Amino acid sequence: MSFNTFGHMFRVTTWGESHGPAIGCTVDGCPPGIALSEADLQPWLDRRKPGTSKFTTQRKEPDEVRILSGVFEGVTTGTPISLMIENTDQRSKDYGDIAQAFRPGHADITYHQKYGVRDYRGGGRSSARETAARVAAGGVARAVIAALAPGLTIQGYMVQMGPRGIDRARFDATVVEENPFWCPDPVAAQDWAAYLDDLRLSHNSVGAVIEVVAHGVPAGLGAPLYAKLDSDLASAMMSINAVKGVEIGDGMAAASLTGVENADEIRMGPNGPEFLSNHAGGILGGISSGQPVVVRFAVKPTSSILTPRQTVNVKGEEIDLITKGRHDPCVGIRAVPVGEAMMACVLADHLLLDRGQTGGMRGRIGGV
Amino acid sequence: MSFNTFGHMFRVTTWGESHGPAIGCTVDGCPPGIALSEADLQPWLDRRKPGTSKFTTQRKEPDEVRILSGVFEGVTTGTPISLMIENTDQRSKDYGDIAQAFRPGHADITYHQKYGVRDYRGGGRSSARETAARVAAGGVARAVIAALAPGLTIQGYMVQMGPRGIDRARFDATVVEENPFWCPDPVAAQDWAAYLDDLRLSHNSVGAVIEVVAHGVPAGLGAPLYAKLDSDLASAMMSINAVKGVEIGDGMAAASLTGVENADEIRMGPNGPEFLSNHAGGILGGISSGQPVVVRFAVKPTSSILTPRQTVNVKGEEIDLITKGRHDPCVGIRAVPVGEAMMACVLADHLLLDRGQTGGMRGRIGGV
Amino acid sequence: MSFNTFGHMFRVTTWGESHGPAIGCTVDGCPPGIALSEADLQPWLDRRKPGTSKFTTQRKEPDEVRILSGVFEGVTTGTPISLMIENTDQRSKDYGDIAQAFRPGHADITYHQKYGVRDYRGGGRSSARETAARVAAGGVARAVIAALAPGLTIQGYMVQMGPRGIDRARFDATVVEENPFWCPDPVAAQDWAAYLDDLRLSHNSVGAVIEVVAHGVPAGLGAPLYAKLDSDLASAMMSINAVKGVEIGDGMAAASLTGVENADEIRMGPNGPEFLSNHAGGILGGISSGQPVVVRFAVKPTSSILTPRQTVNVKGEEIDLITKGRHDPCVGIRAVPVGEAMMACVLADHLLLDRGQTGGMRGRIGGV
Amino acid sequence: MSFNTFGHMFRVTTWGESHGPAIGCTVDGCPPGIALSEADLQPWLDRRKPGTSKFTTQRKEPDEVRILSGVFEGVTTGTPISLMIENTDQRSKDYGDIAQAFRPGHADITYHQKYGVRDYRGGGRSSARETAARVAAGGVARAVIAALAPGLTIQGYMVQMGPRGIDRARFDATVVEENPFWCPDPVAAQDWAAYLDDLRLSHNSVGAVIEVVAHGVPAGLGAPLYAKLDSDLASAMMSINAVKGVEIGDGMAAASLTGVENADEIRMGPNGPEFLSNHAGGILGGISSGQPVVVRFAVKPTSSILTPRQTVNVKGEEIDLITKGRHDPCVGIRAVPVGEAMMACVLADHLLLDRGQTGGMRGRIGGV
Repeated sequence: MSFNTFGHMFRVTTWGESHGPAIGCTVDGCPPGIALSEADLQPWLDRRKPGTSKFTTQRKEPDEVRILSGVFEGVTTGTPISLMIENTDQRSKDYGDIAQAFRPGHADITYHQKYGVRDYRGGGRSSARETAARVAAGGVARAVIAALAPGLTIQGYMVQMGPRGIDRARFDATVVEENPFWCPDPVAAQDWAAYLDDLRLSHNSVGAVIEVVAHGVPAGLGAPLYAKLDSDLASAMMSINAVKGVEIGDGMAAASLTGVENADEIRMGPNGPEFLSNHAGGILGGISSGQPVVVRFAVKPTSSILTPRQTVNVKGEEIDLITKGRHDPCVGIRAVPVGEAMMACVLADHLLLDRGQTGGMRGRIGGV
Repeated sequence: MSFNTFGHMFRVTTWGESHGPAIGCTVDGCPPGIALSEADLQPWLDRRKPGTSKFTTQRKEPDEVRILSGVFEGVTTGTPISLMIENTDQRSKDYGDIAQAFRPGHADITYHQKYGVRDYRGGGRSSARETAARVAAGGVARAVIAALAPGLTIQGYMVQMGPRGIDRARFDATVVEENPFWCPDPVAAQDWAAYLDDLRLSHNSVGAVIEVVAHGVPAGLGAPLYAKLDSDLASAMMSINAVKGVEIGDGMAAASLTGVENADEIRMGPNGPEFLSNHAGGILGGISSGQPVVVRFAVKPTSSILTPRQTVNVKGEEIDLITKGRHDPCVGIRAVPVGEAMMACVLADHLLLDRGQTGGMRGRIGGV
Repeated sequence: MSFNTFGHMFRVTTWGESHGPAIGCTVDGCPPGIALSEADLQPWLDRRKPGTSKFTTQRKEPDEVRILSGVFEGVTTGTPISLMIENTDQRSKDYGDIAQAFRPGHADITYHQKYGVRDYRGGGRSSARETAARVAAGGVARAVIAALAPGLTIQGYMVQMGPRGIDRARFDATVVEENPFWCPDPVAAQDWAAYLDDLRLSHNSVGAVIEVVAHGVPAGLGAPLYAKLDSDLASAMMSINAVKGVEIGDGMAAASLTGVENADEIRMGPNGPEFLSNHAGGILGGISSGQPVVVRFAVKPTSSILTPRQTVNVKGEEIDLITKGRHDPCVGIRAVPVGEAMMACVLADHLLLDRGQTGGMRGRIGGV
Repeated sequence: MSFNTFGHMFRVTTWGESHGPAIGCTVDGCPPGIALSEADLQPWLDRRKPGTSKFTTQRKEPDEVRILSGVFEGVTTGTPISLMIENTDQRSKDYGDIAQAFRPGHADITYHQKYGVRDYRGGGRSSARETAARVAAGGVARAVIAALAPGLTIQGYMVQMGPRGIDRARFDATVVEENPFWCPDPVAAQDWAAYLDDLRLSHNSVGAVIEVVAHGVPAGLGAPLYAKLDSDLASAMMSINAVKGVEIGDGMAAASLTGVENADEIRMGPNGPEFLSNHAGGILGGISSGQPVVVRFAVKPTSSILTPRQTVNVKGEEIDLITKGRHDPCVGIRAVPVGEAMMACVLADHLLLDRGQTGGMRGRIGGV
């Protein structure tokens, strides 16, 4: 129900604005007895941190996460885990120009229309800075997953920058961490570097497509019909700033397939049924099948750009607006760790939900 | 939280299986004093009803909806509205073959894996028949919308069948109701008829893309960050059977745009700000902007086809499966009224939520 | 969130008015694979059924429950269970007098004030008839409990009628089912019969106190701080019509105790810790301790009586009102099975919640 | 759903342990545009603060509340309000004795049984210290109430300490703030001072009954049947540490009344209907009637006492336990501001819920 809470049993409530004293979240429903420390969470935050390359905002935030509750002597206690990240590098003066004007393509205008008041500094609540709290919560979710489904892994990467996609034939998961774009295609990564540099210097920005894959997801997570695993993933990804589309498996391209093509045929393997393809993205009828769970989402280009755009101000005057400040030319880059975090939160939640309802029972196939 | 409930304040809980005695839903949170009768709901159900053309399943269901509670002397009382639709044309014998086998691309196997038991008759709970309950709930939502936001209209239509899209230059909203595909392009509609006939006769099926547009949505609906209007729409559409992708506005194509292109520039009109384009699909920062709200979703092809596909059965034996029965060759067709219904439910819900939190106050721009 | 839904994971949504075509509920979140039939539920409904003695309303309702979904071949499928009970004996003409007037002590006036419209026939939604749906849901909850916590039993009984309490020294659980008052003290039962007869003949009614005890509740159910087991029980019991007070263990009397008296001292027994007293009613810090869970609630007297009372009508005219119809002289009698049902629903819910969060792990004491 | 969240639309999620770095809460769903500062919240916290008299714990906590988000330039923005209170006076060494032993009457044992791990320092999550976060949230709720229902006032007071009740004939609301017990009867206040001193010096503690009354509550708040105003109040009060019973209006005593006595008769006054008595405590059918809303709750005696009590430790050894530390001899005293805060949160929540569903419409009586 809540406006700022996500999840059914593993529930995350985030709070905070870009230029307030801090941002953070409360994770409720975490199982007890799980090893957790700030050192477990910090590496995930460091991956999302701004200023790690010239392709992201130059705001300098250490993004140090503090655990304020719910952990005692190194393990979770089953009570709410409060996480806080201080905001340290705020240049609110950068935002004087947008205090009374509305950036085209930005939430400035709708926040004003709905609430009549908004914290305009750095986008306030609508800032991508909020996603740091998601990444911290995702770190807790990963600890839960490690305990409940040990073989489960999650990896995100960028598959398209602007109109430029990767070549799947060159897909190499090991290069993802080695370039500033989380790109699994080393050739594309080089191409994107030049492309994004040009865009940045021409005072422009660009969108991206991110793919997040979870391997080792047990069959049986999810539920009909409004807590479907894919429905919750769609909600999770669409809740990330600037996301405009979400796909599971073949996604929008599934519309072009025939039933013969789309059927992921099944054979028996040594450990149970095996699928010959994965058009479904690991989810059938809202429930995981044991195949890799594949989600993709599109991030629109940053709306804060140095190129003047036509807009209006609070007085209703027509103006041309240039947005100064330190903005990401491709905010999709930093969305990769965020997408991973949301995948982790959804899977941790459904692991608990499934255990609650079914006790983890599984229908057998061929006695397995 | 609930597995089978959708919405925050205007909440719909559906129940029922394809071949049980009935299906239905309970609508909770409906405002009091709204005129409502079975005659108001039936037309929406008739649009989704099977057997209206040779392009949909030949199952004959009158889909007569009964109001069992929550309405007194022709108006809603503010108490829960129970809606029931009896199942009358069940041929359970059609389903003997799939009682012990799993259709590729279908939820048969995941339901079995999760629950260890499943009502295999007609797909049971995973049947598209459940969507009749959504359409009935959507009828109630439309009555709420008519009372609270009188100028708001919702229209769905199919924009792509298999790989064959419409030509937007020929878009004509008035022809949508005049062909069996809810197609707004009369030329495409003719093309699709021949195409689908061929597919059907060759024992195949095909996917589709549906677009649903709401005009007249007031600015200010939605909320950051986990009850965003687009996040709830994504969840709503992805919860529909067979949906694999959801887009808002430009959707996945937003990734290909630059910030300069994507900025929906703003000018002042006589009644307030006006946008020069609608890449955003009427939603910025999770909140409606007053522009048309545009959602698209992809429906995968029906997995129940007469072409044999490789699969396994409960014993773990490898078999080839042909699915008999009366199935939709393009289940996307009947998804059009369902998408409209989900749009109506989400908007009714957010109208109430917004009224609750803000009292409907609106920040002024230029004194308007 | 929902106005008419109860529970976290085992969720019950009820619907229906006293004189509509039917009442019912949907139970969502029930585990799969649990044996369930209408014959399992009917005995619970028969216990609450009106007209079983001269001390309850003479309305004749068979209260036959139908399962419309969620059960297949005799077991639950994990999908929503829809239960329906038809209303058959409606004498709406009895209610003409209260269509425009407000019974003192009744919800007539507040429903009118809030909604502007109300189904006045038999009290509409505020009728105790709604509790039949709770009892049906409680039957499902009992089936869940039997599967998950086999030794757990629930028994309710009346401990006070008007000012006349039972003598705890004569407490005999076996006589509860043998008198029309669910009274565990055979002497009090006889006294109450004469007392209630007098009240009934003098056109009056009276309140009651019900106690519900659950034995065999495993330690560890519940959670801090807003989903405490006692908090949920208080909510559950207070949601029953006419209830004005709820107590856990010593309840209001706990205020009179000193810390020395109130401490339930602990010794080690063969199977773990044992308590020497149960002032706490089996709940400490919102979590069950393994002792019997003890809840009491007070039911106010029926407000529909044949003695004239001063009130007003919709026009604002001051009138004296006599309420005809077939009303319970002590509605507390029929609240006994309802209290048991709510206890069952709360415990089933917390069994699932606890399994979800902790996996049923338990901290050991003395190696047990 | 959430374990540590309270409310439907105005939602409070609390976190923190007694001896962690801080405690706090997030308030979500607050309307925008409401004046709010730390100075508005601090006075409520000061009322609950420990160490203000010799009758409460001598722990010295300034309980300074910080607003970390959701307020900009002195008004609420409609986004989540994060409140934090640092823990400054922790003497964790006091708690060595209970690290491995279970205080009788305390949550020590059930936390251990459920979670297998617990933060034993000062009671950890089960400490009454958590209620400071509730009081802070209650301060926000009061600001909402002041904006939406200006005449509404809330006052709590103690009506019974141990077996010693107040004399209602001496009730004087103006003396409540003038004695350390929030006692409205000046004679009882003196009696209690002597009584509690004796108890404290004899290493004992005692329970209490608190009453909280809200005047000026508009008719129409609440809803059938599981979000009844009284059901939510019962849940709210029972969620406070050490509460064992909750009453609305006449509460448990309603059981002793006849229907003739219990009927709050109605006459017409200049501004609408007026009731001649208030047995109902301002709530009929779960909905407020416009009369004062009256809630009472019983607080059990503090279980941490210096008198030895029989118990066991984690090893299962039988021991006698004395609890050192700085404990309240009557924790009910500091429960008064907490009860007020919970009343404020419930009423703010229902003001928003009612506005959402009904738009604040009201059925007229006599044209008023």
